[in-house]
Amino acid sequence: MAVGTELLLGQIVDTNSSWIGEQLALAGIDSHFQTKVGDNLGRMTAAIEQALERSDAVIVCGGLGPTPDDITRDAIAAVMGVELRRDEAVVERIRSMFYRRDRQMPANNLQQADVPVGARVMAVQPGTAPGLICPLRPGASSDGMALGGAPLGGAESGGTEPGKADAGAEKVIYAVPGVPWEMKRMVSECVVPDLQARAGERHVIRSRTLRTWGHSESGLAELLEPEMRLLDSTGKATIAFLASGMEGLKVRITAKAADDETAETVLSGVESRARAVIGEAVFGVDDDTMESVVLDMMRSQGLTLGLAESVTGGLIAARLTEVPGASDVLRGAVVPYDRSLKTAVLGAPDVNAVSSEMALAMAEGACRVLGADVGLATTGAAGPDPHEGAEAGTVWIGLHLDGEGDAVRVRFNMARTMVRQLGTITALNLLRTRLPARDG
Amino acid sequence: MAVGTELLLGQIVDTNSSWIGEQLALAGIDSHFQTKVGDNLGRMTAAIEQALERSDAVIVCGGLGPTPDDITRDAIAAVMGVELRRDEAVVERIRSMFYRRDRQMPANNLQQADVPVGARVMAVQPGTAPGLICPLRPGASSDGMALGGAPLGGAESGGTEPGKADAGAEKVIYAVPGVPWEMKRMVSECVVPDLQARAGERHVIRSRTLRTWGHSESGLAELLEPEMRLLDSTGKATIAFLASGMEGLKVRITAKAADDETAETVLSGVESRARAVIGEAVFGVDDDTMESVVLDMMRSQGLTLGLAESVTGGLIAARLTEVPGASDVLRGAVVPYDRSLKTAVLGAPDVNAVSSEMALAMAEGACRVLGADVGLATTGAAGPDPHEGAEAGTVWIGLHLDGEGDAVRVRFNMARTMVRQLGTITALNLLRTRLPARDG
Repeated sequence: MAVGTELLLGQIVDTNSSWIGEQLALAGIDSHFQTKVGDNLGRMTAAIEQALERSDAVIVCGGLGPTPDDITRDAIAAVMGVELRRDEAVVERIRSMFYRRDRQMPANNLQQADVPVGARVMAVQPGTAPGLICPLRPGASSDGMALGGAPLGGAESGGTEPGKADAGAEKVIYAVPGVPWEMKRMVSECVVPDLQARAGERHVIRSRTLRTWGHSESGLAELLEPEMRLLDSTGKATIAFLASGMEGLKVRITAKAADDETAETVLSGVESRARAVIGEAVFGVDDDTMESVVLDMMRSQGLTLGLAESVTGGLIAARLTEVPGASDVLRGAVVPYDRSLKTAVLGAPDVNAVSSEMALAMAEGACRVLGADVGLATTGAAGPDPHEGAEAGTVWIGLHLDGEGDAVRVRFNMARTMVRQLGTITALNLLRTRLPARDG
Repeated sequence: MAVGTELLLGQIVDTNSSWIGEQLALAGIDSHFQTKVGDNLGRMTAAIEQALERSDAVIVCGGLGPTPDDITRDAIAAVMGVELRRDEAVVERIRSMFYRRDRQMPANNLQQADVPVGARVMAVQPGTAPGLICPLRPGASSDGMALGGAPLGGAESGGTEPGKADAGAEKVIYAVPGVPWEMKRMVSECVVPDLQARAGERHVIRSRTLRTWGHSESGLAELLEPEMRLLDSTGKATIAFLASGMEGLKVRITAKAADDETAETVLSGVESRARAVIGEAVFGVDDDTMESVVLDMMRSQGLTLGLAESVTGGLIAARLTEVPGASDVLRGAVVPYDRSLKTAVLGAPDVNAVSSEMALAMAEGACRVLGADVGLATTGAAGPDPHEGAEAGTVWIGLHLDGEGDAVRVRFNMARTMVRQLGTITALNLLRTRLPARDG
């Protein structure tokens, strides 16, 4: 249950529930309903009561802040039929957070320490809002929970029985803040483990994402089709694809197994078979980014980089400098947006601005002017209009490495923003694929 | 109610409900609950029944397609206690759509023509899925609806009465497809007008967003407090704040009135009184961006711009070049990420890299090297570590204009990404506020 009038009014899209739904699926816990409700005590209380009629556990997200419209604590206390009581340990925790930041705690933050009688405060508390674990009908047996099931899709479709909860089991309400980074830690470290313990579930779901660039989504699907057919028959794992703009195409492998170790073994098997097929397109795993991978490779080879960006207009530099420590590798960039600067600053000849010759000259100029070992350049027509005779979406990428030049042309039949984004990852990927050749 | 197991699993974020919520607010119709449910007949039926207990009208979005998991029609028929009957007029409509595209209609598309007995098909049908208007307890009086009310926030917060619907009135279920462009036309052209007719409501809700930079959220709130107090007493409009990183701080004015014209008059009155107080911080309205505003101002004054970005690492250039036609104004940029390039490329003296002197020298160098009328420069410590004696979060901005230099220091006690983003908008804002002075 996501709490906040701004969600109902469409001023903010509720992405928290989507994230929580994904975590529950990964943990093997069925999520059957997700509800948004405004900052209204009566409606919130009624919605929590309705949710408890149909579910064993309810996660309430938001409304734990220090202002008067933060009333999730009150609603839960009303549902539990108990009073709120100030928890002095929580008061101290909040006070010390302000103290460490050298700030006075405003008095209204004290209401964040109000806890429904019978509820527990979560051990993980990244911000001033404590998370709450609120059991209902305390003292009742905690076994016989209807949690769990088949989270890989089977349980959700086809059946006709409403997912009525087992009326005999202890139910539970979790309250977490709406601030995403606070919510995520609490859900991962407290809510999901507590739900799994209550459900007595044994299986785990783990996933691994291969980060790729170089194949289309359908191309990846075609190459991995035999592996996917094999997995379909064993049911041990699934493969899914996700296009993510400048972040590339993600191949997500998800395994369901009795324990962590078995799941990791399944993932590693699928990963190595997938890598054997889509090989060079895989630039990293999970949280790797194209820019962090390229910087690490260059750093390990002791190489420096200079950029000359025209069509990408500074995006490659902005991406690389987002990574702390990029200055070890990146000397700098020139954005010669006016064509005369390609000559005046980079010393390029007076040729067509969207051409192989210009891309090569810009890459060489970036090395020379910026004092770098490697030069990477982009020039093209981002759109919406053609530029110097080139169709919108055309991008030339130039690379200067070990005194030699190389130029590649790509074309994206897309809007300006995507042309620039895909031009950026394509340029960095060209650099990545050319670098290892130095060792060979 | 958004229908689809993929929504619960977090594979797709439900943006349809946010859009519908916004349209309802604009139309003056309260939306108190939004629920996601999977493709399961029992749970969907139960969820619609619960929704009808607490609301006068329910909009069900999704599950109207031609595949076996599209069961919204069946769920609604179950709730209404009626059969589905094939509507031959709809069969013809769907068949002719296929005919016009020169394609044979697959047999499973016929199920899209199944309509609960007593329901009406919407006149607007952009795709093969017809939208449905499904009245409950047909024949009952249609006046006395509890729709409408006070959507500007008053009704949503504070009260303790669950929003129980009037049990004596005819209720209604609307079914629209989950495909956004089909859904949007049906909601705008059929659902909202039908709801307004049922509610007998006449008022409209309109909003306008002032885009600002230069005050903190609490600073804006303090300056606008008298206006907000005045609005509170009249109930004609509200003011809300939204922090949006590099997009600045948004001040959203929302007016409720009998008609469009009155609403616009109220908005204009609030806007002009707000501008009188927060004056120079307002850089635009609604879809204006800082970069489009700065480019337009410079273009109208016939000025060109050169950038020298160190701490922002190309972000300012990347933002400006995102705007089509930026090349009229932007000559280019130098990103001297290695400190030696500040001297080698821009000709800056060998002073501390994070200093007023360096920011000024970089701005002047950008004018000279890039052949621009105006030079804008950033240098600082993005973090997480200090840089050349400056604390993480320190940003110096240099501006060179009409042969004169100006440097401003700001500090953001935030993570690297935000320091770079806020440094970017602050630099562009400095340029914006200095430009009009040329005319004065």
